[in-house]
Amino acid sequence: MMFASDNAGPAAPELMEAVVAANAGSAMPYGADPLTASVTERVREIFEAPDAQVFLLATGTAANALALSALAAPWSAIFCHRHAHIEEDECGAPEFYTGGAKLTLVEGEHARIDADALSRALKATANASVHNVQRGALSLTQATELGAIYTPAQVRALSDLARAHGLPVHMDGTRFSNAVARLGCTPAELTWKAGVDVLCLGASKCGAMAAEAVIFFNPDAARAWEFQLRRKRGGHLFSKMRYVAAQMDRWLTDGLWLELAGRANAAADRLAAGLSEGNLATLVHPVEANALFVSLPRAAHRRLHAAGAQYYLWPPGQTLEGPEDEMLTCRLVCNWATEEAEVDAFLAAARG
Amino acid sequence: MMFASDNAGPAAPELMEAVVAANAGSAMPYGADPLTASVTERVREIFEAPDAQVFLLATGTAANALALSALAAPWSAIFCHRHAHIEEDECGAPEFYTGGAKLTLVEGEHARIDADALSRALKATANASVHNVQRGALSLTQATELGAIYTPAQVRALSDLARAHGLPVHMDGTRFSNAVARLGCTPAELTWKAGVDVLCLGASKCGAMAAEAVIFFNPDAARAWEFQLRRKRGGHLFSKMRYVAAQMDRWLTDGLWLELAGRANAAADRLAAGLSEGNLATLVHPVEANALFVSLPRAAHRRLHAAGAQYYLWPPGQTLEGPEDEMLTCRLVCNWATEEAEVDAFLAAARG
Amino acid sequence: MMFASDNAGPAAPELMEAVVAANAGSAMPYGADPLTASVTERVREIFEAPDAQVFLLATGTAANALALSALAAPWSAIFCHRHAHIEEDECGAPEFYTGGAKLTLVEGEHARIDADALSRALKATANASVHNVQRGALSLTQATELGAIYTPAQVRALSDLARAHGLPVHMDGTRFSNAVARLGCTPAELTWKAGVDVLCLGASKCGAMAAEAVIFFNPDAARAWEFQLRRKRGGHLFSKMRYVAAQMDRWLTDGLWLELAGRANAAADRLAAGLSEGNLATLVHPVEANALFVSLPRAAHRRLHAAGAQYYLWPPGQTLEGPEDEMLTCRLVCNWATEEAEVDAFLAAARG
Amino acid sequence: MMFASDNAGPAAPELMEAVVAANAGSAMPYGADPLTASVTERVREIFEAPDAQVFLLATGTAANALALSALAAPWSAIFCHRHAHIEEDECGAPEFYTGGAKLTLVEGEHARIDADALSRALKATANASVHNVQRGALSLTQATELGAIYTPAQVRALSDLARAHGLPVHMDGTRFSNAVARLGCTPAELTWKAGVDVLCLGASKCGAMAAEAVIFFNPDAARAWEFQLRRKRGGHLFSKMRYVAAQMDRWLTDGLWLELAGRANAAADRLAAGLSEGNLATLVHPVEANALFVSLPRAAHRRLHAAGAQYYLWPPGQTLEGPEDEMLTCRLVCNWATEEAEVDAFLAAARG
Repeated sequence: MMFASDNAGPAAPELMEAVVAANAGSAMPYGADPLTASVTERVREIFEAPDAQVFLLATGTAANALALSALAAPWSAIFCHRHAHIEEDECGAPEFYTGGAKLTLVEGEHARIDADALSRALKATANASVHNVQRGALSLTQATELGAIYTPAQVRALSDLARAHGLPVHMDGTRFSNAVARLGCTPAELTWKAGVDVLCLGASKCGAMAAEAVIFFNPDAARAWEFQLRRKRGGHLFSKMRYVAAQMDRWLTDGLWLELAGRANAAADRLAAGLSEGNLATLVHPVEANALFVSLPRAAHRRLHAAGAQYYLWPPGQTLEGPEDEMLTCRLVCNWATEEAEVDAFLAAARG
Repeated sequence: MMFASDNAGPAAPELMEAVVAANAGSAMPYGADPLTASVTERVREIFEAPDAQVFLLATGTAANALALSALAAPWSAIFCHRHAHIEEDECGAPEFYTGGAKLTLVEGEHARIDADALSRALKATANASVHNVQRGALSLTQATELGAIYTPAQVRALSDLARAHGLPVHMDGTRFSNAVARLGCTPAELTWKAGVDVLCLGASKCGAMAAEAVIFFNPDAARAWEFQLRRKRGGHLFSKMRYVAAQMDRWLTDGLWLELAGRANAAADRLAAGLSEGNLATLVHPVEANALFVSLPRAAHRRLHAAGAQYYLWPPGQTLEGPEDEMLTCRLVCNWATEEAEVDAFLAAARG
Repeated sequence: MMFASDNAGPAAPELMEAVVAANAGSAMPYGADPLTASVTERVREIFEAPDAQVFLLATGTAANALALSALAAPWSAIFCHRHAHIEEDECGAPEFYTGGAKLTLVEGEHARIDADALSRALKATANASVHNVQRGALSLTQATELGAIYTPAQVRALSDLARAHGLPVHMDGTRFSNAVARLGCTPAELTWKAGVDVLCLGASKCGAMAAEAVIFFNPDAARAWEFQLRRKRGGHLFSKMRYVAAQMDRWLTDGLWLELAGRANAAADRLAAGLSEGNLATLVHPVEANALFVSLPRAAHRRLHAAGAQYYLWPPGQTLEGPEDEMLTCRLVCNWATEEAEVDAFLAAARG
Repeated sequence: MMFASDNAGPAAPELMEAVVAANAGSAMPYGADPLTASVTERVREIFEAPDAQVFLLATGTAANALALSALAAPWSAIFCHRHAHIEEDECGAPEFYTGGAKLTLVEGEHARIDADALSRALKATANASVHNVQRGALSLTQATELGAIYTPAQVRALSDLARAHGLPVHMDGTRFSNAVARLGCTPAELTWKAGVDVLCLGASKCGAMAAEAVIFFNPDAARAWEFQLRRKRGGHLFSKMRYVAAQMDRWLTDGLWLELAGRANAAADRLAAGLSEGNLATLVHPVEANALFVSLPRAAHRRLHAAGAQYYLWPPGQTLEGPEDEMLTCRLVCNWATEEAEVDAFLAAARG
């Protein structure tokens, strides 16, 4: 019963096979191999973006921080949600890679940026002088850290605001596949057609061992080259790139990425449905991707703990000590490999 | 006939199997898995260093730059060879991670730091005031970028100089396994017993897909924690660490790492012996690890090129256009998978 | 009628004379002159801090950013008010000098940090893991950017919270003299006796041309030396230090600094009293130092503008175009040289 | 007998008077005052550069580091002489402000970059790939740290090399006035007409208290604005700019800057001539500006020391202990206020 994180899940067997297959013989290093080229082709096709530039990395934090460093000057502000991963869970990587840009926090329910709040925040910077940080970029997290997603229309509304103030738009797509699988829209509709300039597309949480792609939709030779220098300088240019590429290549083949994401989403739905039955638990946020935030009585948490369920109370820092009937919120994250039996065992333990 | 780089070689099948085996079921992320713990135990045993702290990474550049950032302040000088990898091939990653430390270049044959030259360089900083960068660290590359190695006695001599001036010692051990396999000494004799504080131990070039370990021999809780923050902040903390750990763990099991390194060294020896026969070529540097730097007439290079041999003229920038009998230097790197037949085919083509 | 900023005022004649006097003959550079030594002695005496380390600089932004860089690691959070100068008016200098620390914003009336809000913010970081920025420092602005001041008891309450969470305390004392002059307490009571570790003491806004002192109350040889390296590396170590020192030395002599600050405060009081008469204006924030934030009808602003009064509508971005009776807030800052006649002329123009 | 540094000299009375005059009444802060505007006009006229952008600062280190940060990316190499001030005496400020650029050291007599050496260094970077730092800028020091100067033709030769490789040219003109006074050429001939893009023009060492101007000859609105943000972010934007401007404005009026520089040069000449008489001393470098590097027997140094002469043995670290007749090199720097009597007293003491 592993619900601690989708990071705790295994890699999909198809990707493992692709990696093993990629191991045959020699291959030129640093991305000069056929698999890396193939990834770019797949991304361009899937995203209907024939000019996209695609760069492979192995962690989501590196992808986000490097992408932001390409968009936002050291003396600029990056607008993001108060609960964005880049703000809360990257130990200041965006500040490190940008050379000290400021993350300006915006509010919104379920960790989704509210358009009015963004509008106010942008307006507050309308008269930036030499004493103030300048406008840098807008960053959206898809799906959000609280399990919600942005529709294409919502992305568009926020992008329009950003663009009206001269800001490029970054999307942290660590769980982009979960969002696309849920919405049923095209990847293009959820990104560049809705105003996104750069997408960090994450496979690590949904079937890969470690594979992320930074996708620039608006090509610019100088920026693309600069990004490669930034990646190298950050120590993120893999010599044996073929193994990262093999994962991403297979993930994007035959719709596997959406199939895996769909499985994780379905497991979350099953878990949500089961927990909602008989008022066992309260959903704190809507379940739109593969994560749930639910309140359960402490007694239920104790039963789950005893049964071996792994997950985090949320926010961290609460304990199992205390009154039995007090409600405690927890985070439950499903991954592509979460089995129905695992969900059902969780539900049974929760019910007691 | 792949002699472009040891990076171009495949991963050893044993490591691939270990990675596949590691994929069974769930595992707690970010290094809280049993394989990561196992790596630390193996390192401690192999290096006879029961208190060593071990941190996994996936690129050598990240390992070096992060390790140096833990040793050298932003306002300090890191002493290294003019042809060190950290100076020539990391696009300024050490400067980036240290926050702007200065690489002070020292001379020496075969990219091996000369003790007298180091002594002079250190002496020149004896009166550092507030206007000068302060002493930061000494960095040694083992094996060197020109295929030479340091003996334990040579390491000790340089470390003693460093320590006498208050400098900690970093070893870029991207090809440390090649050096140990050649010298037949113990890993401890070549590192902490010879004064090395931090070793970046690289498996990527010798059997892994992507696996490096930063090993601190002198434990210090504050520094170890700081290193973990630096690694995370640099985007180098892998969520699914088990796959990196699986490689390193297997590599260090049953002496596989030295067996693989020994094969690469032997291939280099065979190549060197063949090229030396009949004055076909001149060795520019001694062949002490797995790389050769040899001068061949342009005609031989043309024949090799036509036969499909892959390698770089050295330094880069020379061309196959020109007089037939002009001697051009090239770099030839063998890896663990280089076969005798490949070497022999190369020799045959070179001879014409 | 200059109320745009206290920066717009002249230097006090006493300080100019001291600078001219300091120009006689040669003096060893970089602070090795008698005047620089004298400043340290004066600070130690005035602050009853015989071990204080004192470093001279020429801008408040440099003083704050360098002081914070000595207290807070690159991967840490600096807690400050949403309207702190370090957040709003330094173009990211703290982020630049710290190497990317994060400014965590805390609320509170009149730009004074609220103890409960700080307590909540600190609590939210109680479980910081490797994924989160660590606790860095608390920064207080005295007087605040909205013209309020902290009493010794208020400083103590916030410092106690900080210290309980392991945070050192920085005070941006650009207008520290205004606060001391108003409170009538001792400088020690408002700083180290109330838990402040480092004070940036500003003379530039209150009688100097350009002179700031960074005062470390808790001496530590390594940190003091590191600060000097940071200052040099930031380009803030003046070769002809004697001229900066001459200003600060004279300012701190015979209570001149408090006399000048008292004059600025008194001018603000006179202005506040005049504006409050007959409901001409509404004070938006209490007038506790030398700045006023008042609401006036647009018609009054137009009259003032026509009469040549210089000041900013607040926040910037509003215009004189629009309905006559709409209330617009403005900022009015008095300086040591503001004359009663100037205040009275302003009041007359405001009344119409 | 102050020959320790030109920094040890006083400010010229004309500049002090200008500063005192600038103190009358109020002035808008941050450079929005008439004197700052006047400096730009004077620079444009004197340098025959009607489009030049001029930015005031107060230290030479800040001027150099900020100017270089505007020219050279974090992942680039700045070519400078091994004995350039930016390499040896700024505690890594260029690395700090550029975000980690690398200083690539070039040889040449008397700290003057040798054209052949520069050519070789540039050639070595001809095949820069993603693994290497990219070409950033060329930096020349005028006059050099060893008292030599570049002629317009020499500047042109080096600039041509730089430009042929796509590098902009920075000139550290801390002692630019000494060079112009010596050469008798126009300021334009020695800068933009010879290929210099950015000049850091220093007055601090030759008559000012603290005043430097960064002059961009090739205007570009985006870069000029970026420079202002960098200056602010570095804490180098003075609120009461008028006092810096007053110095620079007066210095550049009526040829005062060249008159003061000429006096310093003449004092150096007198000293050189006196020391050369009777084989008292050996000039180690040609005396082309206001500094001398001379070898004297230890006995002479002892006599000078006893007579109160202030100067540094060069390089630092030598002592007065030892054989009487051993020759020790020292640095002697004259400033605009060095008097003939002071020189003659020095000569008398040296002779014994």
